[in-house]
Amino acid sequence: MNFDVTILGCGAATPTQRLRPTAQVVSVRDHYFLLDCGEGTQIQLRQYGIKMQRIEVIFISHLHGDHIYGLIGLLSTFSLLGRTADLTIVGPPELQEWLALTFRISDTYLSFPLHFIETNKSSEWIWENDFLKVKSIPVKHRMACNAYLFVEKPLERKIVKSFIPHYRLTLDELLVLKKDKPIHREDGKVIEPNEVCSPRQQVRKYFFCTDTLPLKLEDEDLIGIDLLYHEATFLEDHVKRAKETHHSTARQAAEVALFYQARKLILGHFSARYPDLCAFELEAGSVFPQVECAQEGTKYSIEIIESR
Amino acid sequence: MNFDVTILGCGAATPTQRLRPTAQVVSVRDHYFLLDCGEGTQIQLRQYGIKMQRIEVIFISHLHGDHIYGLIGLLSTFSLLGRTADLTIVGPPELQEWLALTFRISDTYLSFPLHFIETNKSSEWIWENDFLKVKSIPVKHRMACNAYLFVEKPLERKIVKSFIPHYRLTLDELLVLKKDKPIHREDGKVIEPNEVCSPRQQVRKYFFCTDTLPLKLEDEDLIGIDLLYHEATFLEDHVKRAKETHHSTARQAAEVALFYQARKLILGHFSARYPDLCAFELEAGSVFPQVECAQEGTKYSIEIIESR
Repeated sequence: MNFDVTILGCGAATPTQRLRPTAQVVSVRDHYFLLDCGEGTQIQLRQYGIKMQRIEVIFISHLHGDHIYGLIGLLSTFSLLGRTADLTIVGPPELQEWLALTFRISDTYLSFPLHFIETNKSSEWIWENDFLKVKSIPVKHRMACNAYLFVEKPLERKIVKSFIPHYRLTLDELLVLKKDKPIHREDGKVIEPNEVCSPRQQVRKYFFCTDTLPLKLEDEDLIGIDLLYHEATFLEDHVKRAKETHHSTARQAAEVALFYQARKLILGHFSARYPDLCAFELEAGSVFPQVECAQEGTKYSIEIIESR
Repeated sequence: MNFDVTILGCGAATPTQRLRPTAQVVSVRDHYFLLDCGEGTQIQLRQYGIKMQRIEVIFISHLHGDHIYGLIGLLSTFSLLGRTADLTIVGPPELQEWLALTFRISDTYLSFPLHFIETNKSSEWIWENDFLKVKSIPVKHRMACNAYLFVEKPLERKIVKSFIPHYRLTLDELLVLKKDKPIHREDGKVIEPNEVCSPRQQVRKYFFCTDTLPLKLEDEDLIGIDLLYHEATFLEDHVKRAKETHHSTARQAAEVALFYQARKLILGHFSARYPDLCAFELEAGSVFPQVECAQEGTKYSIEIIESR
């Protein structure tokens, strides 16, 4: 029942030895998703031992080179390694045109079915499977850009076994209760799920938010996120530059985390001008103490809090 | 008066931790040229401390992804770092279309003038400056592909000072001799450059030959090359596969080196299926002993042999 985020790159604009461009892997219940794909992402996947062929969906925030230039190489490698499993890409419509031309001129034929889901200018639940749903949320950058909110779907509720004989629960009744709905018996008695089930499991949420001006969106799905990755390209010393380039500072990211009542904030997308990232944690920490700077290769796990 | 080749990547098809895709820097008299540009080339340039903004011309052999997917990121980085110096790309015509579309969708504007020289289906001297000329030579791969021959232009000949009073050489005569031409005096006397000049300087040659079936081309410019980089994707154990995919084996590369009377052979473009490259040197060495496997970060220098 894992829910992890592994950072593959957290640098802005141009790759350096120290900071690779944006890419991260979200793994939920052993299913793998890639978020953005800057140049060298496939090398980072190998570096950190992530089984790249298990990636099912790639979510692309926007089309700046530091978020997509690794995509063509990654898809080619999937093919060279003989992938047959379907792959879905969620992202801006122009991606398809770019991939088609790139693969035409480089004589690349994909060995697997590739599906596209185009992002739009408004928030929407854009992808889901049995246990997870993902919302694309437009943010404010120099070009169309989407943040992605990953939300677990609630598991079936667990019925405390000793209550089954006590309430003489039938099989049909158990199925209703597992779906978190009350039973209305013919004698007028109502059995609420909370009476016979163990506490409702937490629905874990991860919000990937890059590249953007700081936004406090009125979206209740964002309240109480467990983990927020927010870009912090600059410190407050360059707040003007941040605004001009439609980026955020560490302090602004912290204010966003506070607004969404996040449990933890990971900063990333650092400008290469800052040799030392400690100042990012200090600046953000004065507003929102549960903050950490993203580190390449680090896995951030969202644990289940049963009692929540 | 350096003439060096630095290997940035010598793997085939897909980048691994061990082998990066094709890219190398040729430096002649402190001028820099890039040969091919697989994914991650800009990271390799930084890794090996090569001042990337000094690259003047990029020569692209062909459009397979492992030879070009790093080009878009490299050009973007040039711009982000504020390059203003002209850059020339020599390569297949479709490159321009791909770069134009990529930069359009990724909202990338180059900060420097970019020039294209399109390669053709026949050999030609495709680029030159004061001290160097480069010939594009079509080879046989699954798509149009060019090898590149780098040839130094001869320096002016150096006149041995003691001969100037001895032959009573005038300024005009010195200029003629420096251009390696004889003087015809009115009295019928002929002074040959070899009489009064120090030995003619060697014209150094480097031949970059990837990806291709083994070819023995009837081109006298190729005879006596100082350094040959030849692809050896496979060993003889996969000679059939090499032929099918239009690649070469180590032994075939050695036979090509022998045919061109090369002084030294560097093998590269290794398939990731071979964990140990010793076998490549062994196989090629039995045919052509002056062989070495390319190593990333290694600089191969062509020294001047005055007495040649």
